[in-house]
Amino acid sequence: MISTVTMRWNKGVLELIDQRKLPQAEEYVKCTTSDCVASAIKDMVVRGAPAIGATAAFGYVIGAMENAKNLTAEKMNFIKEKLAKTRPTAVNLFWALDRMNSKFLSLKDRKPDFIIDELNKEAEMIAREDIEVNKKMGNYGQSLLPADATVITHCNAGALATVDYGTALGMIHSALDHGKRVSAYVDETRPYLQGARLTAWELMKLGVKTTLICDNMAGWVMKTKKIDAIIVGADRIAANGDVANKIGTYSLALLAKRHNVKFYVVAPLSTIDVKIKNGLEIPIEERAHDEVTSVRGVKIAPENVGVYNPAFDVTDSNLVDAIITEKGILTYPYDKKIADIMAEGSV
Amino acid sequence: MISTVTMRWNKGVLELIDQRKLPQAEEYVKCTTSDCVASAIKDMVVRGAPAIGATAAFGYVIGAMENAKNLTAEKMNFIKEKLAKTRPTAVNLFWALDRMNSKFLSLKDRKPDFIIDELNKEAEMIAREDIEVNKKMGNYGQSLLPADATVITHCNAGALATVDYGTALGMIHSALDHGKRVSAYVDETRPYLQGARLTAWELMKLGVKTTLICDNMAGWVMKTKKIDAIIVGADRIAANGDVANKIGTYSLALLAKRHNVKFYVVAPLSTIDVKIKNGLEIPIEERAHDEVTSVRGVKIAPENVGVYNPAFDVTDSNLVDAIITEKGILTYPYDKKIADIMAEGSV
Repeated sequence: MISTVTMRWNKGVLELIDQRKLPQAEEYVKCTTSDCVASAIKDMVVRGAPAIGATAAFGYVIGAMENAKNLTAEKMNFIKEKLAKTRPTAVNLFWALDRMNSKFLSLKDRKPDFIIDELNKEAEMIAREDIEVNKKMGNYGQSLLPADATVITHCNAGALATVDYGTALGMIHSALDHGKRVSAYVDETRPYLQGARLTAWELMKLGVKTTLICDNMAGWVMKTKKIDAIIVGADRIAANGDVANKIGTYSLALLAKRHNVKFYVVAPLSTIDVKIKNGLEIPIEERAHDEVTSVRGVKIAPENVGVYNPAFDVTDSNLVDAIITEKGILTYPYDKKIADIMAEGSV
Repeated sequence: MISTVTMRWNKGVLELIDQRKLPQAEEYVKCTTSDCVASAIKDMVVRGAPAIGATAAFGYVIGAMENAKNLTAEKMNFIKEKLAKTRPTAVNLFWALDRMNSKFLSLKDRKPDFIIDELNKEAEMIAREDIEVNKKMGNYGQSLLPADATVITHCNAGALATVDYGTALGMIHSALDHGKRVSAYVDETRPYLQGARLTAWELMKLGVKTTLICDNMAGWVMKTKKIDAIIVGADRIAANGDVANKIGTYSLALLAKRHNVKFYVVAPLSTIDVKIKNGLEIPIEERAHDEVTSVRGVKIAPENVGVYNPAFDVTDSNLVDAIITEKGILTYPYDKKIADIMAEGSV
């Protein structure tokens, strides 16, 4: 059993806080079918690379339960594919599904009940490891912040983007636990407003002095205020350290470089995709036009206007001052360090 | 009499298209008092530096009509101050009011009816000159665009930001008139969404291929698409060429430099404030928090979150490839060129 703000799991029943409705409402979506889980990922009831990974693992368990009477590799491959095709950019999704599928294949000659029990344990382990990993990253990351730190963060890399504790926001959480003071400027993060809706909500709960800004203000804030660091999460990191993350991250990194502000990426090893040489190879999801032409259902643009809505961008590794993982802090150049750390394996 | 999409003036009656309601509704606000005109500027029924200037001039005429029975310098100074304190950053407001007040002072011993007639002529002249100036700037500016141009624009520097024709969008308008093809990426321009609501609406009417993006996408667009130029207007330009314009402009200029994209500012001489040595001296308006925490009345952030909402920022003159005025195209360094052109005087 897993129970956090982001998700509650009790073998076969997954409840996800509906991140589309935060902060105005705190409602949970209950899924007992793999279709429901796939829709919840696709429709962004749940978002954030690590949270998507754990959710998919639970969806895989539900898929096994749905096929308990005839638990074949074909059936489970179908479940895996259904869950995998929900979002294209975050690699944790594929990582978690591969891990679940490997577990299944190692057990596939055993009895269904046993297999399902083992898959359930594996999914819960993925979720628990995520929390553990986040706390380790937070602890490493906070060492980079001064005793009185002002940061800018983009999108939501908080507890809500993970099973619990968060990646980038885990670093803030840990800094507070170490007695440091942290103020945060929060990019609202159009079009989906994860910053305004989710990050601001989380940081205020943590007791952080939180100042919401529009995305286009971050450069001016860097120029006119004392900013120590920009901290973000990642959806996929290539073997060379190029970082795919929420659209706007690339511009922030360039602006940080120009203003001598540190730019930190906090991401577990499950976010690193060594099969991808560099950022150019990372597929970038384009999402629906109405995310841009309307806000929370209210039209803000003329009918039939053209729209470009990439959900992510890629930040060149040389713009990233550090990638903070559960195995420690990596610095540019990343190629060899990433190869070495991935060869060691995860927690 | 003046009649454009942006404003209609018939001595004593000013109708302004309500830019807060566009593009969903095309409604006009009718003002017959100077209080109404002041509120219309402050509440952003009308916005855009040149449009604000002309509106204030008409407001000054209405103010004179209100005081026809006792038309003293004190009374007109009060009207001028009331209109001047509506917005702090755009210098055209003060420029237009100073021009109207000088006219008044040159006439103040004449009969009220005569004075009011002359003030009316002066205000109409300001409005007509604005259109003329915009067409000249458009013509100069279009010479900088290739035959098949793709540009990014920010905020609204279109017909709606002026009496008619526009500044930055006037450059696109003129390029089309010269048989060039123009595609435009339009920054939505949070928090007030002038890009999504006004610029997209105008460009689609002009027949320009219009693609709406969120502000945080512009850097990624510069990296991944072929962009010829960024074109913006200005709210105030210092003697050294530093440009105050809508928040986000500074970041765009930095990103343009990094991607070798030309960065052009289109602004009439009335936008240049030679009394201001450099951008640091330009007052930056901070607007209400609810512009950021809600969109068109819909809440998007937690209650009581802190907000920073600067309406403008300042772009260093060395990031600006050209300032396009009605007297021609200026290039960096601007100090001497601005001093020379301002010594020559306006149209």
